[in-house]
Amino acid sequence: MGRVICAGLGPGDPELMSVKSDRVIRGARHIAYFRKKGRPGQARSIVQGMLRDDVVEYPMEYPVTTELHFGSDEYKQLMIDFYAEWADKLDMLAREHEVVVLCEGDPFFYGSFMHLHTRLQGRAEVEVLPAIPGMVGCWNSLDTPFTWGDDVMSVLMGTLPEEDLIEHMGRADALVIMKTGRNLPRVRRALAATGRLEDAWLVEKGTMPQQRIAKLAEVADDDCPYFAIVLVHGQGRRPEAEE
Amino acid sequence: MGRVICAGLGPGDPELMSVKSDRVIRGARHIAYFRKKGRPGQARSIVQGMLRDDVVEYPMEYPVTTELHFGSDEYKQLMIDFYAEWADKLDMLAREHEVVVLCEGDPFFYGSFMHLHTRLQGRAEVEVLPAIPGMVGCWNSLDTPFTWGDDVMSVLMGTLPEEDLIEHMGRADALVIMKTGRNLPRVRRALAATGRLEDAWLVEKGTMPQQRIAKLAEVADDDCPYFAIVLVHGQGRRPEAEE
Repeated sequence: MGRVICAGLGPGDPELMSVKSDRVIRGARHIAYFRKKGRPGQARSIVQGMLRDDVVEYPMEYPVTTELHFGSDEYKQLMIDFYAEWADKLDMLAREHEVVVLCEGDPFFYGSFMHLHTRLQGRAEVEVLPAIPGMVGCWNSLDTPFTWGDDVMSVLMGTLPEEDLIEHMGRADALVIMKTGRNLPRVRRALAATGRLEDAWLVEKGTMPQQRIAKLAEVADDDCPYFAIVLVHGQGRRPEAEE
Repeated sequence: MGRVICAGLGPGDPELMSVKSDRVIRGARHIAYFRKKGRPGQARSIVQGMLRDDVVEYPMEYPVTTELHFGSDEYKQLMIDFYAEWADKLDMLAREHEVVVLCEGDPFFYGSFMHLHTRLQGRAEVEVLPAIPGMVGCWNSLDTPFTWGDDVMSVLMGTLPEEDLIEHMGRADALVIMKTGRNLPRVRRALAATGRLEDAWLVEKGTMPQQRIAKLAEVADDDCPYFAIVLVHGQGRRPEAEE
């Protein structure tokens, strides 16, 4: 069996990847990464300037899906075929070489690599290098402790039904909302319904030079990228009440 | 104003700290870290072999509290005095030197440093370097994707009332439970009540050589250290159902 290493890249600042990911990426002869067709790809951009001169690159380009609805059977089949095809290619490649797959954030935390991880089981040896999740980079950018004492933290997807969002937002202390994007109006309604909107921040490209921080209440409905992260800080037990 | 850098150390394997924390720690002339009296301290152990020969160390030793109940006023006052005293010392020190404070996991995620961070505002410049949270190291040790698709992930403290644990455990997909320790019987009852016990793992010292992984159902009531982490994987949308 060959060997595939999935190197978590962290939130975006190359200095925030782990010592181990940094070393593995700098030494890699074969690297693969996801990207949209016609784009350089965020993962590839993060490692710019770190790669060997003789590196061989395998951009794994998502199938073009602009004309298909995400929920459609046709779209699902396209994605299944796409992941199956790349699992096969990586499996073949790994029989002769060590292959490093780049993955933004932490690979096991909502990462795309898990679709390859599942398909490579029993075919290739797979090692996954953990990394700082994007949300951690984003709350670091706000320069304030995010969770305290006995705070409950919930990570929610903006794609969830509004009643589910409200249920969780009402019960948790600290909130992370990912995949907001076009779901911003629903996310904002749910935050307002639970009295959390005024404390919500939107962080885009946290830890990167292009970083943007905004109060969520002031963001226009059409101005929230899919990969921006919404954060509400916990208020848990303060130092004065610390056990 | 002087400068204090809080360097997040990550889950325990020194190779998993960020390139930036690694560099800052190796270059530091003055380092401070929390520890229990009479113990080397986990933070200090992680950086063993990385420090300059001429480094000056400031162990911040928690007051001895074995005879005091955590919730007592006496205990709270001891902790308030302890943090205030070290905020003063770091402030003084930072006027002449750059001081690096070591912090396990990610400093802004349930970290002790926040008690100093709060007290140093307006007195010293403070920079916090993010890191891989302990829970991320623990789920990496289980070598399986932790959250998928639209999974809701909730982070809970074992110190919470049983009815709160049950409410959250019943609604979330992926679960992280910290501060279990002596609360194990309650945590286990809540997991059983919500049908999650059979899928729960206990991970102690994840990513470290002494790492221990066990099915939570099989752990003895008195065999769960305070810093071990309980994990239940999300089951979200699998690759076949991916949007």
